[in-house]
Amino acid sequence: MSRFSLPQDAAFQALNTSLGFDRRLWPFDVAQSRAHVRMLAAQGIISEADRDEILGGLDQAASELEAGTFPFLPDDEDIHMAVERRVTELTGPAGGKIHTGRSRNDQVITDLAMFTRDAATRLSGDLEQLRAVVLQVAEAHLDWPIPGYTHLQRAQPVYLSHHLLAYFWMLTRDIERFAAVLRATSELPLGAGALAGVNFDTDRRMVAAELGFAGVTPNSVDSVSNRDFVLDLLHALSVTATHLSRLGQEIVLWTSTEFGFMTLSDAWSSGSSIMPQKKNPDAAELLRGKAPRVWAHQAALHGVIHALPLTYNKDLQEDKEHLFDAVDTVALCIAAAGGMLETATFHRDAMSAAASDPMIAAVDLADFMVKRGMPFREAHGVVARLVRESVDGGTSLADVTTAELGAEAGAIFEQSSWLESKVSEGGTALARVREQLEQARALLPA
Amino acid sequence: MSRFSLPQDAAFQALNTSLGFDRRLWPFDVAQSRAHVRMLAAQGIISEADRDEILGGLDQAASELEAGTFPFLPDDEDIHMAVERRVTELTGPAGGKIHTGRSRNDQVITDLAMFTRDAATRLSGDLEQLRAVVLQVAEAHLDWPIPGYTHLQRAQPVYLSHHLLAYFWMLTRDIERFAAVLRATSELPLGAGALAGVNFDTDRRMVAAELGFAGVTPNSVDSVSNRDFVLDLLHALSVTATHLSRLGQEIVLWTSTEFGFMTLSDAWSSGSSIMPQKKNPDAAELLRGKAPRVWAHQAALHGVIHALPLTYNKDLQEDKEHLFDAVDTVALCIAAAGGMLETATFHRDAMSAAASDPMIAAVDLADFMVKRGMPFREAHGVVARLVRESVDGGTSLADVTTAELGAEAGAIFEQSSWLESKVSEGGTALARVREQLEQARALLPA
Amino acid sequence: MSRFSLPQDAAFQALNTSLGFDRRLWPFDVAQSRAHVRMLAAQGIISEADRDEILGGLDQAASELEAGTFPFLPDDEDIHMAVERRVTELTGPAGGKIHTGRSRNDQVITDLAMFTRDAATRLSGDLEQLRAVVLQVAEAHLDWPIPGYTHLQRAQPVYLSHHLLAYFWMLTRDIERFAAVLRATSELPLGAGALAGVNFDTDRRMVAAELGFAGVTPNSVDSVSNRDFVLDLLHALSVTATHLSRLGQEIVLWTSTEFGFMTLSDAWSSGSSIMPQKKNPDAAELLRGKAPRVWAHQAALHGVIHALPLTYNKDLQEDKEHLFDAVDTVALCIAAAGGMLETATFHRDAMSAAASDPMIAAVDLADFMVKRGMPFREAHGVVARLVRESVDGGTSLADVTTAELGAEAGAIFEQSSWLESKVSEGGTALARVREQLEQARALLPA
Amino acid sequence: MSRFSLPQDAAFQALNTSLGFDRRLWPFDVAQSRAHVRMLAAQGIISEADRDEILGGLDQAASELEAGTFPFLPDDEDIHMAVERRVTELTGPAGGKIHTGRSRNDQVITDLAMFTRDAATRLSGDLEQLRAVVLQVAEAHLDWPIPGYTHLQRAQPVYLSHHLLAYFWMLTRDIERFAAVLRATSELPLGAGALAGVNFDTDRRMVAAELGFAGVTPNSVDSVSNRDFVLDLLHALSVTATHLSRLGQEIVLWTSTEFGFMTLSDAWSSGSSIMPQKKNPDAAELLRGKAPRVWAHQAALHGVIHALPLTYNKDLQEDKEHLFDAVDTVALCIAAAGGMLETATFHRDAMSAAASDPMIAAVDLADFMVKRGMPFREAHGVVARLVRESVDGGTSLADVTTAELGAEAGAIFEQSSWLESKVSEGGTALARVREQLEQARALLPA
Repeated sequence: MSRFSLPQDAAFQALNTSLGFDRRLWPFDVAQSRAHVRMLAAQGIISEADRDEILGGLDQAASELEAGTFPFLPDDEDIHMAVERRVTELTGPAGGKIHTGRSRNDQVITDLAMFTRDAATRLSGDLEQLRAVVLQVAEAHLDWPIPGYTHLQRAQPVYLSHHLLAYFWMLTRDIERFAAVLRATSELPLGAGALAGVNFDTDRRMVAAELGFAGVTPNSVDSVSNRDFVLDLLHALSVTATHLSRLGQEIVLWTSTEFGFMTLSDAWSSGSSIMPQKKNPDAAELLRGKAPRVWAHQAALHGVIHALPLTYNKDLQEDKEHLFDAVDTVALCIAAAGGMLETATFHRDAMSAAASDPMIAAVDLADFMVKRGMPFREAHGVVARLVRESVDGGTSLADVTTAELGAEAGAIFEQSSWLESKVSEGGTALARVREQLEQARALLPA
Repeated sequence: MSRFSLPQDAAFQALNTSLGFDRRLWPFDVAQSRAHVRMLAAQGIISEADRDEILGGLDQAASELEAGTFPFLPDDEDIHMAVERRVTELTGPAGGKIHTGRSRNDQVITDLAMFTRDAATRLSGDLEQLRAVVLQVAEAHLDWPIPGYTHLQRAQPVYLSHHLLAYFWMLTRDIERFAAVLRATSELPLGAGALAGVNFDTDRRMVAAELGFAGVTPNSVDSVSNRDFVLDLLHALSVTATHLSRLGQEIVLWTSTEFGFMTLSDAWSSGSSIMPQKKNPDAAELLRGKAPRVWAHQAALHGVIHALPLTYNKDLQEDKEHLFDAVDTVALCIAAAGGMLETATFHRDAMSAAASDPMIAAVDLADFMVKRGMPFREAHGVVARLVRESVDGGTSLADVTTAELGAEAGAIFEQSSWLESKVSEGGTALARVREQLEQARALLPA
Repeated sequence: MSRFSLPQDAAFQALNTSLGFDRRLWPFDVAQSRAHVRMLAAQGIISEADRDEILGGLDQAASELEAGTFPFLPDDEDIHMAVERRVTELTGPAGGKIHTGRSRNDQVITDLAMFTRDAATRLSGDLEQLRAVVLQVAEAHLDWPIPGYTHLQRAQPVYLSHHLLAYFWMLTRDIERFAAVLRATSELPLGAGALAGVNFDTDRRMVAAELGFAGVTPNSVDSVSNRDFVLDLLHALSVTATHLSRLGQEIVLWTSTEFGFMTLSDAWSSGSSIMPQKKNPDAAELLRGKAPRVWAHQAALHGVIHALPLTYNKDLQEDKEHLFDAVDTVALCIAAAGGMLETATFHRDAMSAAASDPMIAAVDLADFMVKRGMPFREAHGVVARLVRESVDGGTSLADVTTAELGAEAGAIFEQSSWLESKVSEGGTALARVREQLEQARALLPA
Repeated sequence: MSRFSLPQDAAFQALNTSLGFDRRLWPFDVAQSRAHVRMLAAQGIISEADRDEILGGLDQAASELEAGTFPFLPDDEDIHMAVERRVTELTGPAGGKIHTGRSRNDQVITDLAMFTRDAATRLSGDLEQLRAVVLQVAEAHLDWPIPGYTHLQRAQPVYLSHHLLAYFWMLTRDIERFAAVLRATSELPLGAGALAGVNFDTDRRMVAAELGFAGVTPNSVDSVSNRDFVLDLLHALSVTATHLSRLGQEIVLWTSTEFGFMTLSDAWSSGSSIMPQKKNPDAAELLRGKAPRVWAHQAALHGVIHALPLTYNKDLQEDKEHLFDAVDTVALCIAAAGGMLETATFHRDAMSAAASDPMIAAVDLADFMVKRGMPFREAHGVVARLVRESVDGGTSLADVTTAELGAEAGAIFEQSSWLESKVSEGGTALARVREQLEQARALLPA
């Protein structure tokens, strides 16, 4: 029985229930319950017979959950109570012992830590795959010139491989952030009880070992109050989503008629309900449009935890929907990024033509004069004047330059030299890009 | 047929589909289609026979959607295409005419405007009900003293009715914000076509009239790009949610053992999986914990729309999930606030005792000296000194005051005078609270 | 003296002080103090002589603040205490009476309401000006064709005037939101005292009338707890900023070499430290980049107010920096948008060429067949097939169409008809744009 | 000269300038310029004489910046151009060579990386100090019982030391996040040029070594586009601020009259302008109120970077104000947290009385029955019934228990046993807290 004399109001239950979203935690909940009861028996807190009965009940519940036949009841307020209720139905008094020496508070945060570890591992793998796609597409377009842009104005030409590899390094940092999440979830919270520890001589390290945690949390109060690793995972997800939003934007730009650098596969394109000619880059747009929901989940969780006194407060139930949606969203986006990239076609002529715009050589012309002894700032001024004359006079910068500075200066306006002269480490000269490709390949799993 | 030679990638479809969430728009989608085809026929763009066939198909589709028997297909990417596809199955060539003179772009935003109007109307009604509950609880505790707090330190006593009426005025402002949303959705977007208007001589005002819009949008480009009214509704929802988070916090504080001002009904309380004595105010905590998700949806939608060129971009599909969840969340929270308040018990003795703390009369003592001619700032200093002597000496402020300033000053320390002397308009004196109650009652629907 | 035996810690003061940012409130603070002491004297709470001395002191302090010679002291923790301290220095005992019957709590929120009214009025005026610029630029480019885009793919041509007018209607809705802010600040909070009302028979309506408020707030507790109108102003600012971010994005796109639709004045362009040829649209990029700080301020203030018990809590001091920066940021952005637009040059040839892309006529071709009796969905499919043949065969859609459907269908591919056939209300046909211009002009102040 | 024929509009300059906030980067800007010119000379790109002249100019400029006498000019748009301009004034043609082989794009991000490293190092040190304060306060209150709360309802007693140590572990995780920021800034971006690398054979590793970077960034495009480490620092700051908001909330609660667990030093308290008795915990409230601005900065920067195409866009200038304010805010908050904690007084009697509430022993009573062989869920039900009888009958739970279950069960209601029986690892039993203290001490710097 409960201490209450009235059933919960239906509107209260509708607000309060978490079963709609926390049921996906069942594999972790069952796993931790198995580890918990094994430990209880090993420590003599429950009998081996009880342990075996409970394990049998858990197996049965797990099969039902797996199969979608688990008999949820209207009063099951969350997955934890549902599983315990079902095991007790199946096993009788033994089931009533499953919650010995633990609380929902430490149970929930343990499920969440396990989910977080699992999600970080999966997403990290997805990012590895996407990184491999980026590398492969870069290799396939090693020496294709494309304008590099600043302020969306043509700035200096680079190789498409070099441009694409920028995403390789972003993804590499992303993977590092997911690794940090794994470190942040290396200690098992289970065993903290409601908040104070428990009245039994438990062996938390045994449970940790079975569940793949490297150690146990040092403080029971902190254990049930802590949601840091959820924030850490949301951070990793947010930065990844923001990176993918940049890629999405570039795909939208490059597939426009105006740029014309890229065509998406029909398998990654949408039509219009009214305009039969349209081939829309919907997936690229969604890479953009999905990022805000991810960092909004992160901001929201900060808002939830903000000013909460220790230890557990119901507000913390809000952690899960934010986290789950962010994980699912980013997983979809990573898959879409890979799918678009590996099936897209790049248009060498359009990119190369754009990268041959004489204006783009201005810095090379200035540096040419620097190498002849003029201070850079002065050379910058000379070229700026030539640019202005070219714009005002409607003459090409190459012609203005040749007329004023002679043929050697005019010879600067040949595209290949602009790229190959960027010889500094990390620059776009082919030798440097090849160095980079080697560095990148070394990071891929064998 | 489509212009594409490959079917969409499954990962693309998983990212792209909106049917999972936009199917709730069906009543609006069907209603606008009905109005659209009636107008097409009235304008001679389709025949009356086609109109009737289509209307029949729409009736059938609506019945199926209502009953949950609508045969969704894997290729239905959204509710709009699903309904058109189904009507065409049911009616043949006539169904193929339903999309004449409109685009999914204006269709989607029209559905959304209708949803927004409906949600704003419903929530406004919910707020009216909550406001009535607040008024009724205030009236029932008209002259119960309670400490008013600043900085969570006892400041000055007020009547519980006066304190609760603060929420009445918050809710009144909230209702005003929902009314602004209705004004922001008073113009029908349908008829804008994809973005440029349509090639037919349509009668948009006829459609507007049937659907309850006061007019039509003046610019087709803006019509399909605009999501302002969604932001407006999210603003209204966010402020309401923030208000309710304050109420939630006060319930959490007041139901703590330390305050002891209030007890929730068992119907609005939760127990603990491990601590049998616990009676937790989960619903009040969720009033707090749900607010961040609402304003996070608002921030996210700003993030989505940020830097989008005109006109429609797929990113805008993200508007719906943010909006729907915010609407549903706030509806639950309003219901919970009302449910808790109208079933709660307040504890007059505990509140009154707390409101009798002599320290709380300090400003009245200072004003007493002001009325005798001392400048307020000087009087403030004198009382501060008495407070310090009282704290340092462990003596009550009343005794220190009587000893130093005589019996008349000491007589200040009688609670009732503190409340009844707050005679300024809007103050806590009973006569003023009664004025306020009248103002409040006048706002309620007859 | 104070009740404290130790001075405040320097680190505490550094965190606690608001003088760095609230000093800009001084004009409002002085104005409300003037009105307050006039009312105190009118009600006989202070003498007329005291009133006059205080008014003299306030005049002196105001002159010093205006001139930048006000002698701030290290212990002035905010502008309110600084002014009172200064007036007291200047007037002696009379100055000690200025704070009679009010509290910093109602004083602060009154200053903030006055600032909010002032800012909303100024920004509304700025938006009126920007709206006039948009209208004027639209009129100057009435019949210049430009592609309308969906998904950044060319969709249907519109007139540049029509496209620009979309911003006119956005700004019109923005102005409406600032008007709502004025309604939300129409009641004077002053007179609420610390939270409970005051011990004097004040005349709040007299103060309201002098300060331009239509009435007084009905509840003292709510008066000092309320920050709704700050949230309302932040909402108005956020939506405006988001609109301007879209304009910024379009300017960035249109000034790119790839689009080539627009050139900014040199007065609104930046160069590069290294690339002499660069002409960058920095201001347009900042229209984009500034929007997130505005809605982030709004989200932050929700975070601040979240779960605050009534009444005043120090957290609320955080309202000001968020608000001030948002106001200043949006004011700069509005000015920049106007400056760029009215000095920019549009390139008719480039826009017109892009708007003549035969693909863009696909919907007109479909509608042509609809008018001959084919259901729209079927016509859409026929055109989609022609598009596919055109793309696969490298032939223009016009030629494929003529070959298959005859010369009458082929004649569809003449640009002017595409625009002029959009005759529906709000469409891009010139007659409709002229209607729109009239509607727009009618909204401008005489 | 520039390529422009008009000076910048004043409104453009007002929007565009960053000198107001980026001037604080000068120490990093000067340091990187020193390293850069040394490298240029070492590689033979400039002469040793030029190098020495430039270094002299940089010394002079640095002295002026340090002393506040640096002659800023109206046209200085940022600190980078101001320093170059000044060095050129001081050194003539040599100064014109300082910008050889670099761009403002790689210069800005290098300054920012250096600022980020410096801030992360300083804040990490501040957190170390705060952690030491927490440890010391915990040690000083080792065996003081206090109620542990869930849902702000008394749950189970713990020692104050145990509760405070929860913050020790939060801060420990925070420090770990700042260490990750240092790893994320270990590669020097300088040398990437505008985006493509530079036309000179530079030695980036020489510069990296001088500036304390472990290596160089591998890709020039990514180098100037990347703001990940700013997001990482904002994440570290946000989580720290959220932790401190929880501490702030607990101080606010504990210093309320209702809780009465704690008194702040007068040096960390504020008074009221009107209520002379008030002693307000303003600093604790600001720990709460400042957190949202920190995570809002993080959300805003995601918003800024969202959908930006590579490489540098002016929007990225927005990174700095968000970062700087977040760094300064958190530094103030850490100092305030330490200041309040180390000067506060805790009230043993009040805490102990609250921790002796018999209700708080309910789980111990249930576990007592478990140890006698009853399944936990059944024992939970029995105790729930006793609690209900106690509440309904107004009898203490201890008495009800003794009456029904006998004296041995009744003996459970002695506080000390409740704490000391929490023997599980990480629990509140003194032996376990001592273990924890040892773990904690081991983490402090020697």
